[in-house]
Formats: sequence, C-alpha cells, structure tokens
Amino acid sequence: MAFMLHPRLAKGTHFIGKSGSCHLLLKDNAAFPWILIVPETEQEVVELHQLPPEQFAEVVFLIRQVSQFMSDFFQPEKLNVACLGNVVRQMHLHVVARWSDDAAWPDPVWTCGIKKAYRDEDIIELCVRARLALNLADEP
Amino acid sequence: MAFMLHPRLAKGTHFIGKSGSCHLLLKDNAAFPWILIVPETEQEVVELHQLPPEQFAEVVFLIRQVSQFMSDFFQPEKLNVACLGNVVRQMHLHVVARWSDDAAWPDPVWTCGIKKAYRDEDIIELCVRARLALNLADEP
Repeated sequence: MAFMLHPRLAKGTHFIGKSGSCHLLLKDNAAFPWILIVPETEQEVVELHQLPPEQFAEVVFLIRQVSQFMSDFFQPEKLNVACLGNVVRQMHLHVVARWSDDAAWPDPVWTCGIKKAYRDEDIIELCVRARLALNLADEP
Repeated sequence: MAFMLHPRLAKGTHFIGKSGSCHLLLKDNAAFPWILIVPETEQEVVELHQLPPEQFAEVVFLIRQVSQFMSDFFQPEKLNVACLGNVVRQMHLHVVARWSDDAAWPDPVWTCGIKKAYRDEDIIELCVRARLALNLADEP
C-alpha cells in the first residue's frame, strides 16, 4: 500500500523535501524552529528499533545531517532530538532548535502551546537552503 | 582528562553497566521505566551530530539495543527516545517505557514530577537482565 502521511503530521507543517525514504517537514511555528523526519514505514513499525537495519542506518544518518543543518542555519544553543509518538503513532522524529530565552526553556517543546507565524520568505529560505544542504528531492 | 559523570545524572540513578564508551543508568523512578545512555564525550561535544563518526555509530546502535531490551523486558505500549540536554549539557540519551495509563501520558515525562520507588529486587533483576541481554561490563 502506498505510504500516506498521517493527517496530524501533514497539518501545520510545510514539506521541505525528501531524502531516501524520509519526508522532511517544517513545523509551521516560528517560536521553535522544528523539523520532522518521517520515514516511510510499514504501519506496524512504530519504534526506532523496529526499522529494518538499512532504514535504521538511513534514518540515524539523516538525524545527523538534519542536526548539522539546523545547527548551521539557526545557530541554536541546544538541539532537542526525539522520537516519541504517544499521540501520533506513525513514526516521526523531532529535531528542534532551542535557546535559553525561547518560550518553553528549559522544558521540552511538546507541551508548550505557544505559536508564532513564519513569514513566507523565511519558509522559502529555509526550504531552499535545506534542499541544497541535504540534497533533498523536492517532491514527496 | 578522565571522564566524570555529571552529578545531576549520577544522582537518582543506578549504574546498570557499560557498553563500549557508554554508561547505562536506570532512573530511580518506577513510575516510568527509564534508562539513560551516557557516552563518554569531550566536554564540548553536546549534540549527537558532534560525536565522532565511530562513536555516533556506537551510540545509535546502543539506542537500538536498549530500545529492544526495554521493549522485551517492560512490554510498553510505546517507547520515548530523546536527546535533550537543556538542563544538563553532558550528553545523555533517554529511553523511556510508556503506557497510556502512566502518570504523564500522553505528555512526555520530563516535566512530570511524579516519583515512585523501585523495590530492591526489581532493580537487581533489571540490572542482571540488562547486563546479560546487552553484554554489559559491570564496572564504570
């Protein structure tokens, strides 16, 4: 069956690009620069250790690349990297840029309801830079 | 300089064992079965992507092994895996077993103050099983 992005992951995100089997999405919230990595998995694969070895290697290498990109582009004080899935089981990894003066610090961002709109030009710049830096395909 | 475990990571945890360059610690809280993976890093290495390639590979493989162990041992509904470090910068990864009736669900555990003591025999059983399953050294 064709892979379908979970509606809750699609909602409130912008498609940045695709790397191998993984969709990269930008959370539509300028309060916390935040990229989601969504590997195309079988529905029953919801934990990192359940990924086939090749895809596990692909995903962790992409975490490394996305972390480096976020670090270069946003120059945050800290990155928060996580695979949770308590609410949406479709596997997705969070890479979030954090600063000690952001709205949730030092807590994690997941229970913080604060939202701030991106300007269109900021979304475009991030997508273009990420596609170049990470050599992303521009179609899902 | 010899590696020193951060006092805030040492406090409230039990040493389970060591795998390569990584210390495995059990959080002393039965409310959330929770293992910390602490790789011995240089002080300036605080992000996953800053790990040397060999150690990055070691750490992510250990995440896979610890996740499998937690899944087998605790049979949780979901695992939460994360590298945050907003409060303690010394790199440490969280692998937490979660259930839909646990004290923090569906939120992440980090801001949940609820604590519950383990029985000594439960700590011993977990440490022995983890050492066997993950082939851990029993000295830091």
